[in-house]
Amino acid sequence: MTQELAPWASPVARARIAEVAAELTDLSPEGVSETVRRALDDHARSFDREGIVLYAGTNVMSPAAQAVSEALVSGRPSMGWPGEKYQAGLDHLDTLEVLAPTIVARLLGARFAEVRSHSATMANLAVYTAVTEPGDTIAVLPERAGGHTSHHAVGAPGVRGLRVVDLPYDSGAYDVDLDALPGFLDRERPRLVVIGASLLLFPHRVGAIAEAVAAAGATLLYDASHMAGLVAAGRFQKPLAEGAQILTFSTYKSFGGPPGGVIATDDEGLAERLSTAVFPGLTANYDAGRLAPLAVTAAEIMAGGGAYADTCIANARLLAAALAEEGFTVAGADRGFTDSHHVAVDVGDGRAAMARLAEAGIYLSAIGLPWQEPGEPDRGLRIGTQEVTRRGYGEDDLRKTAATMADVLLR
Amino acid sequence: MTQELAPWASPVARARIAEVAAELTDLSPEGVSETVRRALDDHARSFDREGIVLYAGTNVMSPAAQAVSEALVSGRPSMGWPGEKYQAGLDHLDTLEVLAPTIVARLLGARFAEVRSHSATMANLAVYTAVTEPGDTIAVLPERAGGHTSHHAVGAPGVRGLRVVDLPYDSGAYDVDLDALPGFLDRERPRLVVIGASLLLFPHRVGAIAEAVAAAGATLLYDASHMAGLVAAGRFQKPLAEGAQILTFSTYKSFGGPPGGVIATDDEGLAERLSTAVFPGLTANYDAGRLAPLAVTAAEIMAGGGAYADTCIANARLLAAALAEEGFTVAGADRGFTDSHHVAVDVGDGRAAMARLAEAGIYLSAIGLPWQEPGEPDRGLRIGTQEVTRRGYGEDDLRKTAATMADVLLR
Repeated sequence: MTQELAPWASPVARARIAEVAAELTDLSPEGVSETVRRALDDHARSFDREGIVLYAGTNVMSPAAQAVSEALVSGRPSMGWPGEKYQAGLDHLDTLEVLAPTIVARLLGARFAEVRSHSATMANLAVYTAVTEPGDTIAVLPERAGGHTSHHAVGAPGVRGLRVVDLPYDSGAYDVDLDALPGFLDRERPRLVVIGASLLLFPHRVGAIAEAVAAAGATLLYDASHMAGLVAAGRFQKPLAEGAQILTFSTYKSFGGPPGGVIATDDEGLAERLSTAVFPGLTANYDAGRLAPLAVTAAEIMAGGGAYADTCIANARLLAAALAEEGFTVAGADRGFTDSHHVAVDVGDGRAAMARLAEAGIYLSAIGLPWQEPGEPDRGLRIGTQEVTRRGYGEDDLRKTAATMADVLLR
Repeated sequence: MTQELAPWASPVARARIAEVAAELTDLSPEGVSETVRRALDDHARSFDREGIVLYAGTNVMSPAAQAVSEALVSGRPSMGWPGEKYQAGLDHLDTLEVLAPTIVARLLGARFAEVRSHSATMANLAVYTAVTEPGDTIAVLPERAGGHTSHHAVGAPGVRGLRVVDLPYDSGAYDVDLDALPGFLDRERPRLVVIGASLLLFPHRVGAIAEAVAAAGATLLYDASHMAGLVAAGRFQKPLAEGAQILTFSTYKSFGGPPGGVIATDDEGLAERLSTAVFPGLTANYDAGRLAPLAVTAAEIMAGGGAYADTCIANARLLAAALAEEGFTVAGADRGFTDSHHVAVDVGDGRAAMARLAEAGIYLSAIGLPWQEPGEPDRGLRIGTQEVTRRGYGEDDLRKTAATMADVLLR
């Protein structure tokens, strides 16, 4: 294995890639199968079984959703609307194609749900394609306020050729700066405003934001990738009902389903443009296999009466309080720490803290915090309780986790 | 289920959607699981087990590749290069991230392989992002010559805001019109030229095309989505060695792996831009789960010495000859019908023929043929032998299939 994978990567990355590559000597089918099997098994043991997964951007599917995940269906393109498919013989998959968007739309209380995006990043790019032209401006949350890569120029907006500007942010309110917003919109004239963050402790004031955005003639997109499981259960907030025109989200984080992206709206004209942007704009085979576990997951959320979402939130508050008791600086202390399943801890050097916790089998990510200086490395640790809640964690487990984190980082 | 899924769709599609929706009355988790399970089982029976799948855009993975397909890994984002991951605890997946591109690059004889695209459509969009700006022109094969949706304005080029023009085409040569090409490039000034088609019976004359494209200062992309299994085995043609700067392809058709897209190049500068366009441009979680079966599939092709590709091609020629004997008008008769695993049959009304064959359990798709009039509905049937070859079809089976097709369509 002599050719270097990414000679343009950082020295740290190149060293790690070389270290891994040095182990890969047997490229026979048996050798590769064995290497891959060992990697998957080691991963399942260390991460899925023995790890404490507090990373906010993941989850495990329910047993019922896992039971309908069939890899081969993903290789059966079924393109176009039921009744006028490009290829023949896939009529049984029409059931998945009708069921998944119907149940997701009903769950969200939305008129339309487009479920064919491979990811929320692609869902966001479909929104940019449907409501902007190259050269237009969009306004998004700053990175330090949890604005996602797929909102920033380095991500999907750059693919669409958009100019991206940061919304004014009020770090005390953990939200867009409502006072500064109208003047900002007047100056920057964005076609689209994107809210919804990778760290969201408290609901956005969507009503007030939507009013200013509408007055400026722009469209409001709420990216609920992280909040989807709560929003779908009627908790946290109801972005469409509160005034956002478009909702996007990832289906595998707090939503708990397979990977994929959803776009929802109540506006039929928008729905058609969004749908066309997803197919044929961004997809050919949009993966009917994904739709089976998605439909089952949506049905489970609908039947659950919000119990899972409520426990996720309660667990986040318990863990936040326990961390504060241990001596951590936990964000949002004056507001009960969090209204979501997210918790944020200011540790000064987030990346170093993340690495030390990983050695103790606690897995999460560093994140920028709203009050850090521009350019300062991520100060925070971001925690999501969606996975430990699925695994049945209660107060004792959470207290023990907080104590372990304190042992590793504070003592 | 009262809200209509896509009120803007055609009457035919709306009727079929309504028909399917009318069956979906039980939205409880148990009801949805049962509905989904029945759809998957009916699909597996009618299509996978009892069907004769001649559709060119699909395949089944090998048992070894299926054995390493784990749905949960797809919900474990592992973002960034190994050694500097955004999230902690996923080090074992580094093995997949290094192994998959290394073995794919070696298989292709390319310096760089970018394997993180969710699809070939996304791979093509990454190429557009890396080598064009919005407003640029790209030149692609006309639809009737197999130019894919992801090459045309209705697809990914529209997302990038590109102007798309059709290359001059010589239907007698089944290739770009080499005489008209220099003048065309001089007039249209495309930044990128895309060849490689959804129906490709004979190799493109890549050397001559590349020369003209280079003289015009443009970049040449060869989309081998359909040919990838042959190209990877050293059969059909070697697009990079013959002069294309970039190769893209889908990993689940003739390649026989999981869904996904690959971009390969020998140019380090291009490789870096393409890599950045895929991540963070178009992906956040790029699905490490896909990389395990991809690596195993690549290892199998590498070890196979081209036997599978050779049998796919031999089977295509056998089937084409059998169809011609039965009285069908098979394309390329004067050149031995095909040099690939594709066969094209001119049936006049491709969609109607496709539907009648589906009733007999033979599944394929209609396709435009190079000699049809602009605007004329697809005249052709496209056949790919990659799946029946995987299933062990030999001459007798193919003759029987040709006879059944004649029974349905000619007698």
